[in-house]
Amino acid sequence: MTRPDYSKQGYTDVSAALRNAILTITINPANHRPKEFAGALYQNLLHVFELCGSDDRVRAVILTADHTAPAYCSGGDISDGWDGLWDPESEKEGEHAHRDAGGTLSMAIYRCHKITIAAVNGHAAGIGMTALQLPFDFRFVWKDAKLVFPFIRRGIIPEATSTFLLPKLIHHSLATSLLLTARASTPSKSRALAALYHEILPTREAVYPAARKFALDMIKKSSAAGVGDVKVLLRHPGTSMEENYILESMVTRAAKGNAKEEGDPWGIAKRLLFRENSDGDGNIYPWWQTIDVRHHKTKL
Amino acid sequence: MTRPDYSKQGYTDVSAALRNAILTITINPANHRPKEFAGALYQNLLHVFELCGSDDRVRAVILTADHTAPAYCSGGDISDGWDGLWDPESEKEGEHAHRDAGGTLSMAIYRCHKITIAAVNGHAAGIGMTALQLPFDFRFVWKDAKLVFPFIRRGIIPEATSTFLLPKLIHHSLATSLLLTARASTPSKSRALAALYHEILPTREAVYPAARKFALDMIKKSSAAGVGDVKVLLRHPGTSMEENYILESMVTRAAKGNAKEEGDPWGIAKRLLFRENSDGDGNIYPWWQTIDVRHHKTKL
Amino acid sequence: MTRPDYSKQGYTDVSAALRNAILTITINPANHRPKEFAGALYQNLLHVFELCGSDDRVRAVILTADHTAPAYCSGGDISDGWDGLWDPESEKEGEHAHRDAGGTLSMAIYRCHKITIAAVNGHAAGIGMTALQLPFDFRFVWKDAKLVFPFIRRGIIPEATSTFLLPKLIHHSLATSLLLTARASTPSKSRALAALYHEILPTREAVYPAARKFALDMIKKSSAAGVGDVKVLLRHPGTSMEENYILESMVTRAAKGNAKEEGDPWGIAKRLLFRENSDGDGNIYPWWQTIDVRHHKTKL
Repeated sequence: MTRPDYSKQGYTDVSAALRNAILTITINPANHRPKEFAGALYQNLLHVFELCGSDDRVRAVILTADHTAPAYCSGGDISDGWDGLWDPESEKEGEHAHRDAGGTLSMAIYRCHKITIAAVNGHAAGIGMTALQLPFDFRFVWKDAKLVFPFIRRGIIPEATSTFLLPKLIHHSLATSLLLTARASTPSKSRALAALYHEILPTREAVYPAARKFALDMIKKSSAAGVGDVKVLLRHPGTSMEENYILESMVTRAAKGNAKEEGDPWGIAKRLLFRENSDGDGNIYPWWQTIDVRHHKTKL
Repeated sequence: MTRPDYSKQGYTDVSAALRNAILTITINPANHRPKEFAGALYQNLLHVFELCGSDDRVRAVILTADHTAPAYCSGGDISDGWDGLWDPESEKEGEHAHRDAGGTLSMAIYRCHKITIAAVNGHAAGIGMTALQLPFDFRFVWKDAKLVFPFIRRGIIPEATSTFLLPKLIHHSLATSLLLTARASTPSKSRALAALYHEILPTREAVYPAARKFALDMIKKSSAAGVGDVKVLLRHPGTSMEENYILESMVTRAAKGNAKEEGDPWGIAKRLLFRENSDGDGNIYPWWQTIDVRHHKTKL
Repeated sequence: MTRPDYSKQGYTDVSAALRNAILTITINPANHRPKEFAGALYQNLLHVFELCGSDDRVRAVILTADHTAPAYCSGGDISDGWDGLWDPESEKEGEHAHRDAGGTLSMAIYRCHKITIAAVNGHAAGIGMTALQLPFDFRFVWKDAKLVFPFIRRGIIPEATSTFLLPKLIHHSLATSLLLTARASTPSKSRALAALYHEILPTREAVYPAARKFALDMIKKSSAAGVGDVKVLLRHPGTSMEENYILESMVTRAAKGNAKEEGDPWGIAKRLLFRENSDGDGNIYPWWQTIDVRHHKTKL
């Protein structure tokens, strides 16, 4: 377990603060449209999501922006080309390497076993719609936010695993509309966009407080391990109903055993350990295959 | 084919009656909150669903409650611990066995090739939301029923294959909300809950009659084999569009052949036989892998 | 690349005309209820969808009907039996062959890498709901169109890969309702039906112009290769988030390289070539397995 001071990580494009078990990450107003997405904003976000994963004081993570900023996140500026979209580590490996930075960040957020909430209190485009929204458990939004997946109109491919996440979150009929039309609209006007959000708020300033109130209630009435278990089951279900039955039973059995441990009603510590140490006796995590996605100087 | 007398099965927690090809199973008012779910209510339901599967007089099964009972089903009482959640057969095998009773029942209902309807004429929680609703073909509900998936607030994992079924029935965005927030709401107030139901009725007493009328219409205008075929295709689709194309073509061809048989316009008997006897010539069932989910004194 | 004259293909049941990069295929009023679906209407549609796939002048394909015809398509007439449902090529191979013509057509439309739109300006049933709507990217409809998946009420199985496509387009809860109840309703009355459509229009005559205006806007603001890439990613996503991350990154990298080519800002030609010629250096298409679905005188 680590207990970092989030204010001392040298972040330039976001600020991060922990209060009442909620880590709030705020995109700086000046950085709502990063010159290259794979730059500081990306590095800051990747770092803070990895950092909080092993901090047991953090129960929920809210990503938001200043509600007076021009936007929540307007996406990477590609007026000078697409070079800023790529993960710098992979790029070092040369021509055949290809890992979009948005995808790397999406996976870091998706794997986070805390409660994750995107509080979208302004307009959003590109990476601001994909990595900064789709991998979160819950999305709160301002009813008049202009939202767009602009990729296809710029000659780019929707990135950040959005072609995987969007048709899961809403159905194919709506996901196809959003990705292929690439039109800007708002949650109050578009049924497809509205379907993405847990709550739609009347003003920009109402979005973060609503998300925070929601997170506080969830924290009070659930356990960290329980949240983590449900997230893992939803993300790695059995490939058949039968397999899922066995997985749920295993996870419930583990939860039951752990719940008896003194001073740790939900077995948080032990079950997090399960996740980290895959060789322990009785260890059930992970049951899914963990894939190494780094580029290894060979083509797929 | 069996033709059991459903009133003479010695059920203590439900009553079951067959009329006009509809088997109505009613949870006794006193048993809406079973002391341990894996007890009599579970055993009765498991038995009656297995029994009616081979009774060709039964075209549809409706599970309901007395509309004056405190609830449709309030879930298992876990105030004394979770021991009542486990399938007693598996428990005999000791510490490493783990099969939740809810999952066993869910699979029995899901596999039933009759038309299955949950007529939810009262509040529902826990197993009352999972095994007693999600594996059914259709759900009818009272608009003011208080409904909740409370698991995460009690330190338990959502069971009865709900982490598999719920994100299929409605999309991930809504399923995540229901399972992670674990908040009680009603179909008239919650978009996520409303999405689960075929029809939402204004009063508790209107729910069962609406479900029954719907079932009678379906029975009159469809064939038993046709219903079974569609259910099987929806549950075991091809893993690709191409594979599904071949499966649908096979099933249609079989249906066509059978439809010509005298006195059996839709080939019910022969096609049910296909399902039961997997060695027959021209047999297309099952094309999916049947998994043995019993515990075998080894870990997964 | 081919540049066929669509008016000279000898079609008897449809007419086809290319204008402003949009190929409009109109079902002849007399053929809205084909005597046997696998006859001329099927052959004409299969031919025109295959033809336009390699015609680079075509950016979008709209299938529609005469708005004064009795229906958009009322499905095959099965009053004399089901023989007209089968693909004639497969039927030649005898008793054990089974390929439904609707499925063959569905796959041809689904694989088309143009923008595809069904402009449903009249009632639709059977194949008019399945192959002639579900494999399209977008569906536009008249609010009072009577729509039905009648299969189960006629003893037939839902065909044309509808058991695969429908639960993808809308969720299982709605797909089950549509296929099992087999009831006729309209987009203005049925939530399940409405979920299938991108836009619902007040009159029959408004449907095609709305679809055409929508297509023109999409064409102006997107590239052919970009549309094709998104369609391919949505249809062949990674089996895990990690795999999808690598796929999206590969496709984006390919798009980036091609975008630099002179005179071909989005690399359309080269990337279409990728799709056609799977041996080229740097070729990323196809990453999915292509399945030969022809019948080969052996049973599956």
